[in-house]
Amino acid sequence: DSNLKLFSLNSDPKLARKIAEILGIELGKSSVTRFSDGEIQINIEESIRGDEVYIVQSISNPVNEHLMELLIMVDALKRASAKTINLVIPYYGYARQDRKARAREPITAKLVANLLQRAGSTRVIALDLHAPQIQGFFDIPIDHLLGVPILGEYFINKNLEDIVIVSPDHGGVTRARKLADRLKAPIAIIDKRRPRPNVVEVMNIVGHIEGKTAILIDDIIDTAGTITLAANALVEHGAKEVYACCTHPVLSGPAIERIQSSKIKELVITDSITIPEEKRIDKLVELSVAPLISEAIKRIYEKQSVDELVQ
Amino acid sequence: DSNLKLFSLNSDPKLARKIAEILGIELGKSSVTRFSDGEIQINIEESIRGDEVYIVQSISNPVNEHLMELLIMVDALKRASAKTINLVIPYYGYARQDRKARAREPITAKLVANLLQRAGSTRVIALDLHAPQIQGFFDIPIDHLLGVPILGEYFINKNLEDIVIVSPDHGGVTRARKLADRLKAPIAIIDKRRPRPNVVEVMNIVGHIEGKTAILIDDIIDTAGTITLAANALVEHGAKEVYACCTHPVLSGPAIERIQSSKIKELVITDSITIPEEKRIDKLVELSVAPLISEAIKRIYEKQSVDELVQ
Ligand SMILES: Nc1ncnc2c1ncn2[C@@H]1O[C@H](COP(=O)(O)O)[C@@H](O)[C@H]1O
Ligand SMILES: Nc1ncnc2c1ncn2[C@@H]1O[C@H](COP(=O)(O)O)[C@@H](O)[C@H]1O
Repeated sequence: DSNLKLFSLNSDPKLARKIAEILGIELGKSSVTRFSDGEIQINIEESIRGDEVYIVQSISNPVNEHLMELLIMVDALKRASAKTINLVIPYYGYARQDRKARAREPITAKLVANLLQRAGSTRVIALDLHAPQIQGFFDIPIDHLLGVPILGEYFINKNLEDIVIVSPDHGGVTRARKLADRLKAPIAIIDKRRPRPNVVEVMNIVGHIEGKTAILIDDIIDTAGTITLAANALVEHGAKEVYACCTHPVLSGPAIERIQSSKIKELVITDSITIPEEKRIDKLVELSVAPLISEAIKRIYEKQSVDELVQ
Repeated sequence: DSNLKLFSLNSDPKLARKIAEILGIELGKSSVTRFSDGEIQINIEESIRGDEVYIVQSISNPVNEHLMELLIMVDALKRASAKTINLVIPYYGYARQDRKARAREPITAKLVANLLQRAGSTRVIALDLHAPQIQGFFDIPIDHLLGVPILGEYFINKNLEDIVIVSPDHGGVTRARKLADRLKAPIAIIDKRRPRPNVVEVMNIVGHIEGKTAILIDDIIDTAGTITLAANALVEHGAKEVYACCTHPVLSGPAIERIQSSKIKELVITDSITIPEEKRIDKLVELSVAPLISEAIKRIYEKQSVDELVQ
């Protein structure tokens, strides 16, 4: 009889508490602090010998701090004789560096996978990876949960009429298709070019959006250049109103300002990344991935199938 | 014929330039920047295919940033077909977390060694590791350079009279003995207790220091609690004057203030860690490890022995 133990590090303590609550367990006792020189100090304050341990930690900004916290925690758990070390990674950072787009680039998403495994992880639970191929970067089991049902349910309950699901770029059409299936809606695509990273230029719209309620969907909203230019283009081309949604609200740099001054009526996000208070503008609607993640943990711990939850 | 290439990351560009100059080569062209969300972006701007590549990077504060820069650079070099990837790590961070002192602690110094190897490093050149045992954390060749000859030469040239070399704690006696041998001087030891990390209490002095010029030596000076309390205790017990020296000037938190207001006449350090301008007080004397490191690189590249340079 191995106990189920759930630990939180510093990226998403509130989400971790919600998951623990749904599972009906206490969060494991631990502390993650810094020595005077910035080095991470981890204390696990209860025995986990022979236990099935889950760690909730997103690789979100400050990305290198959060990643190192996770790696050091895995090292500590391994040396403390955990039976299994299961990483719950709601947001997998460095996912956009998943291929060599130019000569002599790193593939940091693969490096991160290698590091997590080298430290001693035995399983990963991820959510909406930027590319599903990242699953193949791991040689340990990985369950890839989907955010679309959560976003879809929200919009179904909203009872919007005459909607169209819009992908802000070519790469996101499959995701838009999945949301459209749930909402029984057509899709459209923004046809854009990106001159360099974090800079976006909107071009053209493929599909019918005039007079409709458009729902933009992306996996990550980072500087919000793509999504806000897309929203404004949709309104210019005659959309009645524009909602936007994403699983991972990175919201770096000018993102909040851009969203605030854009034509986006409401931006629906999840708590896969913890948004600091000062970024919580009224337009943001946050849905929780805690029920989804708890269900996945429960089924994995009880050795049941997670087929319906994953891609 | 594999070329020798030397790259600098963000921890010690000035040291890297000095090393390149002594070797008579140009620094490799690369840039290490941040995306808007804090993720590291590395561009290697020249071919390194088939080359013997050396990277100069200390795992110094901000320690997790510097470590991740190094790991990502190694990943990029490996994928760009470098023949060998040699890490020059003047300061090896997390070295004090080199054993389980309490239950359920990580051994982060070993984790770091594992991560560096997993990323694809083929050799490490380190300097005054906090514990020489850390050499054994690696399964690739590691050359462990010594800072004592550099510090010793400085004090020999100073022609101080009637000196005693003082170790600020029991752990540093071997190091003090090495410096004492070079200066043909006796040693003394500060007998202290440390109630918890970054807090120090000085006790008692073992050895003769009255009327003498004391030279305190440590490997790392971090918050400077140990060394400044030691210096003040030496003066209280009748030392004529007190010099201090170390290889790795971490100098975090209250360090500079403590050194400034202590009885230390001069603190001799090396450039294994880059000190920001605002911390460069008059009491600091910086010696360069560039000649030592260049000599090591030259010999390794030319397949000569480095025996005299290492422990
Ligand atoms: N953190 C980041 N922020 C912005 N762009 C990134 C980031 N990481 C990688 N990229 C770039 O994003 C591109 C890949 O994004 P995508 O085409 O959406 O998969 C590549 O050109 C990467 O260089
Ligand atoms: N970055 C750090 N700053 C201060 N103390 C540390 C640091 N890393 C590890 N330690 C502690 O330092 C002790 C080991 O130092 P030492 O006895 O000098 O080898 C252990 O108790 C560690 O928990």
